[in-house]
Amino acid sequence: MSTYSIGLDFGTNSCRSLIVDLTDGREAASHVFAYPSGVSGVIVDATDPMLARQNPADYLAGIEVTITESLKKAAAADPLFDPKSVIGIGVDTTGSSPMPVDALGMPLCFDERFAHDPAAMVWLWKDHTSHAEAARITALGSEFRPQYMAKIGGTYSSEWFWSKICRLKASAPEVYAAAASFVEICDWIPAVLTGHTKPNEIKRSVCAAGHKAMFNAAWGGLPDTEFLEMLSPGLGELRARLFDTAYAADTLAGTLSPEWAERLGLSDAVAIAVGAFDAHLGAVGAGIKPGVLVKIMGTSTCDIMVAPSAEPLADIRGVCGIVDNSVMNGYYGIEAGQSAVGDIFLWFVNRFVPDTYGATQDEKFKNLEFAAGRLKPGESGLLALDWNNGNRTILVDVRLTGLLLGQTLSTEPHEVYRALIEATAFGALTIIDRIESYGVKIEEVVNCGGLASKNPVLMQIYADITGRPMKLSRSEQTPALGAAIVAAAAAGAQSGGYASVADARSSRSRPTTRRTKNSTRCIRSCTTGSARRAPRARCTTS
Amino acid sequence: MSTYSIGLDFGTNSCRSLIVDLTDGREAASHVFAYPSGVSGVIVDATDPMLARQNPADYLAGIEVTITESLKKAAAADPLFDPKSVIGIGVDTTGSSPMPVDALGMPLCFDERFAHDPAAMVWLWKDHTSHAEAARITALGSEFRPQYMAKIGGTYSSEWFWSKICRLKASAPEVYAAAASFVEICDWIPAVLTGHTKPNEIKRSVCAAGHKAMFNAAWGGLPDTEFLEMLSPGLGELRARLFDTAYAADTLAGTLSPEWAERLGLSDAVAIAVGAFDAHLGAVGAGIKPGVLVKIMGTSTCDIMVAPSAEPLADIRGVCGIVDNSVMNGYYGIEAGQSAVGDIFLWFVNRFVPDTYGATQDEKFKNLEFAAGRLKPGESGLLALDWNNGNRTILVDVRLTGLLLGQTLSTEPHEVYRALIEATAFGALTIIDRIESYGVKIEEVVNCGGLASKNPVLMQIYADITGRPMKLSRSEQTPALGAAIVAAAAAGAQSGGYASVADARSSRSRPTTRRTKNSTRCIRSCTTGSARRAPRARCTTS
Repeated sequence: MSTYSIGLDFGTNSCRSLIVDLTDGREAASHVFAYPSGVSGVIVDATDPMLARQNPADYLAGIEVTITESLKKAAAADPLFDPKSVIGIGVDTTGSSPMPVDALGMPLCFDERFAHDPAAMVWLWKDHTSHAEAARITALGSEFRPQYMAKIGGTYSSEWFWSKICRLKASAPEVYAAAASFVEICDWIPAVLTGHTKPNEIKRSVCAAGHKAMFNAAWGGLPDTEFLEMLSPGLGELRARLFDTAYAADTLAGTLSPEWAERLGLSDAVAIAVGAFDAHLGAVGAGIKPGVLVKIMGTSTCDIMVAPSAEPLADIRGVCGIVDNSVMNGYYGIEAGQSAVGDIFLWFVNRFVPDTYGATQDEKFKNLEFAAGRLKPGESGLLALDWNNGNRTILVDVRLTGLLLGQTLSTEPHEVYRALIEATAFGALTIIDRIESYGVKIEEVVNCGGLASKNPVLMQIYADITGRPMKLSRSEQTPALGAAIVAAAAAGAQSGGYASVADARSSRSRPTTRRTKNSTRCIRSCTTGSARRAPRARCTTS
Repeated sequence: MSTYSIGLDFGTNSCRSLIVDLTDGREAASHVFAYPSGVSGVIVDATDPMLARQNPADYLAGIEVTITESLKKAAAADPLFDPKSVIGIGVDTTGSSPMPVDALGMPLCFDERFAHDPAAMVWLWKDHTSHAEAARITALGSEFRPQYMAKIGGTYSSEWFWSKICRLKASAPEVYAAAASFVEICDWIPAVLTGHTKPNEIKRSVCAAGHKAMFNAAWGGLPDTEFLEMLSPGLGELRARLFDTAYAADTLAGTLSPEWAERLGLSDAVAIAVGAFDAHLGAVGAGIKPGVLVKIMGTSTCDIMVAPSAEPLADIRGVCGIVDNSVMNGYYGIEAGQSAVGDIFLWFVNRFVPDTYGATQDEKFKNLEFAAGRLKPGESGLLALDWNNGNRTILVDVRLTGLLLGQTLSTEPHEVYRALIEATAFGALTIIDRIESYGVKIEEVVNCGGLASKNPVLMQIYADITGRPMKLSRSEQTPALGAAIVAAAAAGAQSGGYASVADARSSRSRPTTRRTKNSTRCIRSCTTGSARRAPRARCTTS
């Protein structure tokens, strides 16, 4: 009889659960829940486009709806399916998305004093209100703690933990004063499921702590008190109210609380894994190993690699972070990314493409893709930069903005669309080149996410511009799959699970790949009108 | 009893006639005729976007239709109107738009051997197939005839006479060999009306010759034979088959031929004025005088000034030309311009503005203008260059292309529209600054054309960016009005006309102006994020 593991994936606009059969890796059922709060789940402020918060109540509703509905679907598909054969739940979320909590670990926005205060909610990863704080952390870190900066590519981001905490402390001192601690939502959701939410009882994720909060065993965990005082006088005392240990995602966080077991119809023996970020578990779901770059392509892009902890690894300048055990135990996790990819295409199609390309967004995308695919590389003379939402890797600057040049009076929307795809592909190539320039060889690129699977023209352009085959992950929900895999590993010591992520992953077949025609590319140099050729490459899924 | 003059204005897509009452400057009637050939009157080549030709038969049809129809309208409006009281016809056209003719002055494309050969048609001003020839002329002129180059701003354009002739000679030698001469259409149409079309009988326009063919009395007319041989071996002998005299537009070219008098229902005593370019006669129609910059704003923009011939005038680098008598007798005409203004807005609105802004082009323009007008200067963070069709003044390079920077994921079409308006306004300011930097003071800016009169937001942005009041010309058909004015002057020696252009112009009331609210502007610096302020200015039409 099969055993199952559930992956819970908390995205920016919705969450999903995925039930995975651990005997063969089959995806038995899944269910998606759109967050009810705000605009597509994001609390915004009309006067400040940088602000993006979330209501943690949406996560609690999402756990219940997605798990109970996916259990129903699994049962409907297989009469032998038994919810009691679920042995583990893994959790992945966006991040860094911290929130202030009280002494019991409850969100401050659940307290009626702060119920409508965005500062007391989840500070979503894409909240950029703290860019000044990020710049200050980079400046002080570069001068006084270069060892910290070396592990995060040299620049601290407004998307990260300490920027947000400093901003919250400065802009909402009453909320800061009321907070017993601050918790990433990837730590809070597993804590809620185990029933142990008191801040000092929460098992924190080394993925979140290491990549976003400058946590590193080499300097005893979080940044030292003296440095935190430099960032903001009074911040030093917070350190003791945070944590001094952090765990890999295949660690057991605890077992399902009787209350949630009852609510979900599961056994209270279910193993709850320590949480991690979506991209990192997405990489696990896509079959990451040394030499493989996994690109999680969505509204933005996360690029994940692993390198054996046993071997020396240079500090790669410009990447988002290098953290031991953050993706797989025994490996450094390397994270990089692009601030906007799918978001740029959506922006362009929804605002600048007339109905002559189609009545619906889907039709417009389809016709744009067709027309863009017929263009020869460089034919339009257009050149774009993919900086509409800033540049995450390598420049780490959210204030950067986009560029388009080469427009004539004949320029058509599908030509701009292709230029925007090319811009993101050059952004991807820049990351690949940077990582390889530090001696980490990239032998294979595996792409996950709807953007990769739905858009063969985009994949072809990526293959041509990067000069590498582009593979597609087998699953279309790799983060949830990765979460289910680490949960199986976390459950391993108990019953029916696996001893390690590698064990669990080996039960899955490799991602399928498909070969398409060879092609070459040349983007016309904008200044000289001359053409240059890039290496031949192919987009493959066999 | 009134006497009348007719202005014939031959544009890129259509021609018009305008009947002007010479007693009070009243515009009695007008009629527009769209050229039937090609795409909106332009013969194009799907394989070469640089190519733009015209069928001269369209002009002949246009003369007949527009004059007879406007005479009918005048008679309908005023029972006392008598076609025999028309005493002059003036002609303005695009340019440089030359065509090859036979020994009788007939277009070679009227010969069935060449009927379908674009090389035997009119080479329209915006034909850019000869950009390599233009570059060669600039290079050779700069080295061997710096005096020629000094009068045309230092750079020869692909829009001009010799570039086109050289290109024709190289690309269609059989057409070149069959040509007895080459004639600008502004010279050919008056010649047709007088019945004297033989090349050596045609009175050539000093406006066309001086601004586009490097004709100057200082070196004996057209460029010397030796220089022409440098441009293309064998070209030197053409010089003798062109012309050695050129005339101001208020010169009598001749009287209406009996055949055309019959066809149009006019007297054969009607004076036909020497032709000129549309922008130059538009400046006359707008009341040009020293200190006044007249901007003819359409798909592209022509900027015209005059300066007394009696005073020294520096060679202004980057302008299109400085030619004695080219606008008014006794004054230097200074011509500059922007390669695309209205064309950029049309391109953007027709291709990149979705139907949410309106179902029709007019609605889209209206809504874009409204939304763009509500933006504060610099608010969007966008910055554009107006080089979609190259840059005429000051860079004189048709190969240049557009640029837009500062895009975010929130950028809206009306923000881009405003950035494009601002780009053209900065283009206008650059021309103003260049002319003034050579000591020619600009005390007043008068704008003509539908773009200026229909778009108060555009005029306000121009006023703010240039730091000057923007006036509107009274007439909406200033080129045709200017043509009618010079025709009246040409008829002056005969009966009921005027002795000079200044006389004719003084019969018109000054353009009305209107004051709108003061405003200031600041375009955010794209590189630093800081803001700068430009002087306060106002858009006025009182």
